[in-house]
Amino acid sequence: MRNKVYVSELRVPFAEVELADGNAPVRLYDTSGPTDFEQLPRKDWVAARAAAGLPVTQLQCARADIVTPEMEFIAIREGLPAEVVRAEVEAGRAVIPANIHHPELEPMIIGSRFLVKINANIGTSAVTFDVAEEVEKMRWATRWGADTVMDLSTGPSIHATREAIIRASAVPLGTVPIYQALEKVKGDPLKLTWEIFRDTVIEQAEQGVDYMTVHAGVLLAHVPLAADRVTGIVSRGGSIMAAWCLARHEENFLYTHYRELCEIFARYDITFSLGDGLRPGSIADANDAAQFAELRTLGELTSIAWEYGVQVMVEGPGHVPMHKIKENVDLQQELCHSAPFYTLGPLTTDIAPAYDHITSAIGAAMIAMYGTAMLCYVTPKEHLGLPNRDDVKAGVIAYKIAAHAADLAKGHPTAQAWDDALSKARFEFRWQDQFNLSLDPETARSYHDETLPAEPAKTA
Amino acid sequence: MRNKVYVSELRVPFAEVELADGNAPVRLYDTSGPTDFEQLPRKDWVAARAAAGLPVTQLQCARADIVTPEMEFIAIREGLPAEVVRAEVEAGRAVIPANIHHPELEPMIIGSRFLVKINANIGTSAVTFDVAEEVEKMRWATRWGADTVMDLSTGPSIHATREAIIRASAVPLGTVPIYQALEKVKGDPLKLTWEIFRDTVIEQAEQGVDYMTVHAGVLLAHVPLAADRVTGIVSRGGSIMAAWCLARHEENFLYTHYRELCEIFARYDITFSLGDGLRPGSIADANDAAQFAELRTLGELTSIAWEYGVQVMVEGPGHVPMHKIKENVDLQQELCHSAPFYTLGPLTTDIAPAYDHITSAIGAAMIAMYGTAMLCYVTPKEHLGLPNRDDVKAGVIAYKIAAHAADLAKGHPTAQAWDDALSKARFEFRWQDQFNLSLDPETARSYHDETLPAEPAKTA
Repeated sequence: MRNKVYVSELRVPFAEVELADGNAPVRLYDTSGPTDFEQLPRKDWVAARAAAGLPVTQLQCARADIVTPEMEFIAIREGLPAEVVRAEVEAGRAVIPANIHHPELEPMIIGSRFLVKINANIGTSAVTFDVAEEVEKMRWATRWGADTVMDLSTGPSIHATREAIIRASAVPLGTVPIYQALEKVKGDPLKLTWEIFRDTVIEQAEQGVDYMTVHAGVLLAHVPLAADRVTGIVSRGGSIMAAWCLARHEENFLYTHYRELCEIFARYDITFSLGDGLRPGSIADANDAAQFAELRTLGELTSIAWEYGVQVMVEGPGHVPMHKIKENVDLQQELCHSAPFYTLGPLTTDIAPAYDHITSAIGAAMIAMYGTAMLCYVTPKEHLGLPNRDDVKAGVIAYKIAAHAADLAKGHPTAQAWDDALSKARFEFRWQDQFNLSLDPETARSYHDETLPAEPAKTA
Repeated sequence: MRNKVYVSELRVPFAEVELADGNAPVRLYDTSGPTDFEQLPRKDWVAARAAAGLPVTQLQCARADIVTPEMEFIAIREGLPAEVVRAEVEAGRAVIPANIHHPELEPMIIGSRFLVKINANIGTSAVTFDVAEEVEKMRWATRWGADTVMDLSTGPSIHATREAIIRASAVPLGTVPIYQALEKVKGDPLKLTWEIFRDTVIEQAEQGVDYMTVHAGVLLAHVPLAADRVTGIVSRGGSIMAAWCLARHEENFLYTHYRELCEIFARYDITFSLGDGLRPGSIADANDAAQFAELRTLGELTSIAWEYGVQVMVEGPGHVPMHKIKENVDLQQELCHSAPFYTLGPLTTDIAPAYDHITSAIGAAMIAMYGTAMLCYVTPKEHLGLPNRDDVKAGVIAYKIAAHAADLAKGHPTAQAWDDALSKARFEFRWQDQFNLSLDPETARSYHDETLPAEPAKTA
């Protein structure tokens, strides 16, 4: 049996797996969120801070030596002392994406000393949009273990879709505001302005978006560095900003207005996810001059955000062969002063479209072992089409595997107990325990029953 | 379009992918085998050597500075000089599993300087057996890229199943003879004798088995080292030999009669696959005293086989967390004098039954990058049931990804051209080229058509 339990008056959720034959129950990290949102303890935490005149952002609190309820919650969740949580946030090595307008949030932390996190992308497009379907995708992704969700909606109903997702979401929600800004100018990048972008950010901030991808590192001078690539610029945000810079021959307005953006982010405690608009789109383009020039700029932008007490994580690739993965982490940690790294995969080969959850789970596990704090999932439909429900699940499961394999390799204090419990159940032929401890109990059970359906085969 | 082409009078097969817009065709390594076996050039090669009084094994030939037709064939296949092939075989760093009674073989090489190879296990069991079905599984596995196949049949019709598979197989066939020997004593390990085992080996040798797993390193003194493990001894061959040693309190007869075995293997040019009967069965047991004690013995056995001119590869784990993977390769290479390493995965976590093709593809890619020459696949049914056709394909594809990712990381001279061709096709929206270059064109095409079915979307 698996049951959801809440620990402490902070109501920290866990999935508790009861085991047979006197084996102690195992508590697993749980991202599935409550079935209702009647209790919103975080509403009071935020209000109390405001009433007491305490700082707004978790980073500002950490610097003031305040252990917030969010930090205490996370400490219980991670099985680590609250002081470690506070100290890592203060140092900028970890972020707690938690907009003050997202009371539904069950706080979580992204940083290399903590459990490796995974993000699932969802969102409507111009072709398909259905608000309820996107909320259901968020629930489905978090049921299987997504730690954050990014709403990458384009097309109509962006605002309403996002509102519905945030109000139903116990995990941090991330967005890429330039996508909505582009809708407002009917898809023409050249019509984008700082003002349109700023207003979009504020609109989303008011809704409670916890972190935002901002492609402020795509500088005019960087764009020519991508000219000789096999696959040019593949990041959508990167392409938009590169087109804007080139057409106007002006510096990226996200870069020139970056300090104003920091002021806005500080008011809501929105976390920067500094986008890697020049990330490589193929094995051939990995670790090239364009990618690393932008990374250097992201390091500068990290320091500036910290001046404002704003939390920062930094995005990374993409497509990288295995022998070039470690360099990405080492350089990001050096140039960005140990801010958390958040990578998309990376895919370790380009030859397997339809299996890029696997080509990238290999790279994701490795890059997380080297210190990446969060992994953006890739589904089997990557490069081919829009993920459906099954694809979302396949992507989340592959990435939970990558993240947990890295937790084991890094020696997170709570990681190996899960493996050991399952290994022991397997060796003792406690089939039900093995299924219940599985990342995907349903599929494990059904695969077993396909060849050995009889109950005795499960208890023998 | 993808077409099979044959190169040189040696008839070296490739899959040639024609590309649009003036892009040069790409030739891919091809394991699918001929549709008929009317031409058996290798029959003449073996006969000519015998007539000329040349040595029998590829290792003996390499030492005598003879470049065999098998080596020339492999040189073309790998895109490397024939002298490199010969020299690597002479040094024991590579093996060419090629029984003189397997004329259907398209020769291939297993060694860290060459393309990483993958093995697919098939075989009947006491529960399900159907000879035609196993032949079809072999064809199916090699169609998707299996470089060798192991027939792990138990139950009735072992001999007939194996005969049918070998006669239809252009890839090397491996077996674990102790499985058939056990059938001959009705499943009671204590009734096993050297004589029964020897006769089984000769029976299989006459049929043309190219390599055999022999658990000669499970010594009586090693067995107690596994007593305190979470998951004891999980290798079937290891369990059989451990039971035999403990019950009789005698040394493993495979170890005591090993030199006789070498004499037999030398007559047929059978390659040893020295089994790791004490491999870990869980994350908790990785890299322990039992595992490494056996590995030390396998190093001794490697040297002895080489005295007889017999080719050797060494099997490895199993279940290993990422941070302990490199030690496995380094120690194996040191203790076994650089003989090729052949590992089962390893799985990098135990928490995901039903997804062990993924948990292990991560470990497989890494261990191959560190120098493992061949990877034994793991299917989604591992630990749960017997793989069906879909599971075989899923396992092979996951392992082709792992192997190719390692080829890229190691810089095999032919590896990256494949990725580059596909990356370029992707960037230029040449959808048909992208599909045809894919590891699994059918699935890539169908995923694309699910969301964007119209032809313009593929050519736009």
